[in-house]
Amino acid sequence: MTNDTRTDDRRSDDTTAERSGLSRRGLFGLVGAGVVGGAVGFGIDRVITPEASASGAAAVYPFYGEHQAGIVTPAQDRLHFAAFDVGAIGREELAELLADWSYAANRMTAGLGAGEFGAASGPYDSPPDDTGEALDLPPAGLTITFGFGPTLFDDRFGLASKRPAALIDLPHFPGDALVDGLVGGDLCIQACSDDPQVAVHAIRNLSRIAFGRASLRWSQLGFGRTSSTTRAQATPRNLFGFKDGTANLRAEDTAKVDSQVWVADDGGWMAGGSYLVSRKIRMTIETWDRASLREQERVVGRTKGEGAPLSGGTEFTEPDFALAGRGDAPLIDEAAHVRLAHPGSNGGAAMLRRGYNFVDGNDELGRLNAGLFFICFQSDPREQFVPIQLKLARNDAMNEYLRHVGSGIFAVPAGASAGRPIGAGLFD
Amino acid sequence: MTNDTRTDDRRSDDTTAERSGLSRRGLFGLVGAGVVGGAVGFGIDRVITPEASASGAAAVYPFYGEHQAGIVTPAQDRLHFAAFDVGAIGREELAELLADWSYAANRMTAGLGAGEFGAASGPYDSPPDDTGEALDLPPAGLTITFGFGPTLFDDRFGLASKRPAALIDLPHFPGDALVDGLVGGDLCIQACSDDPQVAVHAIRNLSRIAFGRASLRWSQLGFGRTSSTTRAQATPRNLFGFKDGTANLRAEDTAKVDSQVWVADDGGWMAGGSYLVSRKIRMTIETWDRASLREQERVVGRTKGEGAPLSGGTEFTEPDFALAGRGDAPLIDEAAHVRLAHPGSNGGAAMLRRGYNFVDGNDELGRLNAGLFFICFQSDPREQFVPIQLKLARNDAMNEYLRHVGSGIFAVPAGASAGRPIGAGLFD
Repeated sequence: MTNDTRTDDRRSDDTTAERSGLSRRGLFGLVGAGVVGGAVGFGIDRVITPEASASGAAAVYPFYGEHQAGIVTPAQDRLHFAAFDVGAIGREELAELLADWSYAANRMTAGLGAGEFGAASGPYDSPPDDTGEALDLPPAGLTITFGFGPTLFDDRFGLASKRPAALIDLPHFPGDALVDGLVGGDLCIQACSDDPQVAVHAIRNLSRIAFGRASLRWSQLGFGRTSSTTRAQATPRNLFGFKDGTANLRAEDTAKVDSQVWVADDGGWMAGGSYLVSRKIRMTIETWDRASLREQERVVGRTKGEGAPLSGGTEFTEPDFALAGRGDAPLIDEAAHVRLAHPGSNGGAAMLRRGYNFVDGNDELGRLNAGLFFICFQSDPREQFVPIQLKLARNDAMNEYLRHVGSGIFAVPAGASAGRPIGAGLFD
Repeated sequence: MTNDTRTDDRRSDDTTAERSGLSRRGLFGLVGAGVVGGAVGFGIDRVITPEASASGAAAVYPFYGEHQAGIVTPAQDRLHFAAFDVGAIGREELAELLADWSYAANRMTAGLGAGEFGAASGPYDSPPDDTGEALDLPPAGLTITFGFGPTLFDDRFGLASKRPAALIDLPHFPGDALVDGLVGGDLCIQACSDDPQVAVHAIRNLSRIAFGRASLRWSQLGFGRTSSTTRAQATPRNLFGFKDGTANLRAEDTAKVDSQVWVADDGGWMAGGSYLVSRKIRMTIETWDRASLREQERVVGRTKGEGAPLSGGTEFTEPDFALAGRGDAPLIDEAAHVRLAHPGSNGGAAMLRRGYNFVDGNDELGRLNAGLFFICFQSDPREQFVPIQLKLARNDAMNEYLRHVGSGIFAVPAGASAGRPIGAGLFD
């Protein structure tokens, strides 16, 4: 009988105890309904907790932890973000999907294949349990971060009572030009890595595992992170050519991170989690590129080269919004982005921004379809993203050069641990 | 008068002698018709020939040279490729555009801004002559490679007699599913770099300089080069998860490169050039991912892990197409990709492949819009790409998992030099 132990284990649908690999449905996703045979393999789950290393291709961030990785983790250079619609499954199958995803994410962030056998071994007459394009690649700092959209808490899964008050439906913001197919989602996955092939590999394999249970609603690739999340990182530039995220929250600001990023422990299932808001913001870069250097700096409120506030100093000098120049006009315009977005203008509210630049080819008029895929994390979007964005949407001089076309809000639960997949608190 | 010298120089439209910067039309592109004032700057051109360094972010490849860079140059990790339609301009303006592009490409490949002043200085009431998103970034091996499509040789520019015989209109291949907006182009630019933001910056600034003269027809971002072009590079993997380009021509194969990549010197303007064929090949990866490991390896003709031919050995062992296994069936299937694409099956014809993986989000059915942006260089597509692709399109077992949706063919002239922009031979 010992030879059959593994097959027996695979048939177990227990989603809360230590996992023995992908669920039967997860394996169905890999091979197609009706094809699963006894020869399909599975893995014994184990706690994969490599040491987090400094940076570069060798960087490894453990999937298990108090908080999910990919939030205060030093921002990697590449993004593949995906939103999913859950199909016609029930509550138990949803829990199973999250357990399968946690199992595979725990492996992939450690540089392993999504399944036990990997892309190039295992039963020869079954599809490999990993797609293979990352076979020779180190994880390059891969993080996989899961979130739950408001629609997950409708009546399909019996989760209505679990919907956190902070997981609001985002209001309409002035000027919004949202495109149906780029909004919402029951689930989201943010995959970040310094190698785009590694991030793509993660989303692809998680999509594959979800086959028949959840399908891609929209997805976005990004590059050139637009915010630093630690002090060691230089401030990158967005596609307006300006440094972006100079005043961002950093991992080192632990008190602020605790109050502004992580959800406090009130006994609820979101303790230790955070809320993610994403906005796909198309930049009308051809118009921006026609604006004078003076206009560009007025709009941003900082110098283009150094990124110093127009009130003087260097990049990290605190802006002096009261300082006036010629004709008593403030040196930093009343409508400048830096003024309106500043915590001082928003009752101290800040967010951890973690966005990426994107270029999705060009439109039919020959204009680059380019901009910023904005991502932010916060403890309560009602106090942070929403009021700040309302103010920006009404007054920001930058609006002339922006169009918000995509939007999402997701509850990002605390980290997983061995035997306790992402979102297990939903089902307690 | 000395104070006015620069302005006077800027007004010169001389496109063959040493350039003094962007043409008047090039500057118009930057600031919009009617806005150019005397205050807009320009640069004195100079030969920028940094030492080519080994690799990484510090790698610099000179723009000037016998051949254009970006062909036998060690394949960088990221691609931004763009095809352009030329607008309602004449022969002289076309020459001027190519001179402007050469001027800016010479600067950007050296890590400088597209124009003299750069993104953050220059006249404060004019738009910066560079967009700025690469301000703090090293060139990361940036190469910018220009090509001319068949339509450039129609009757608009008096170039019909200059059309090379090898610059054919590509035939229809069996199974082609080409999409209008992804085919053709009067001009193309291939920008490769190890940093996507640097490649995007190059295409964006060249598009900007072309404003009013040429506009984007289609464009493509890519990552994870799918071929090595030097022996020092490990063989990368495509989105089928297989190593791709094991048998590719390499820069070190100088005799083969001379005969199969570079156009011989027959006194024509294409001597020292090459022909680029691009194909946007969508992979139906969800179907592929359902195929067994056996089927995947049969289709490719190699093992998935090591990339060894199914006739045995290791990655670089020459395939033995005659070797038979059980039932006298050849170990490498008659329809295997490796068999049909092999030079031995094509009269010795080979190509220098230089493609990239792409993921352009997902389609409405939730499938990743992903695949291979295939690029190859050759001395004569009539003898190389066309017969090989005809054979593949008819017989390749891989076709079941592929769909060719985009296509282009471009004459890539020899390299530029100081005072002799790209394509100067067209106008001699």
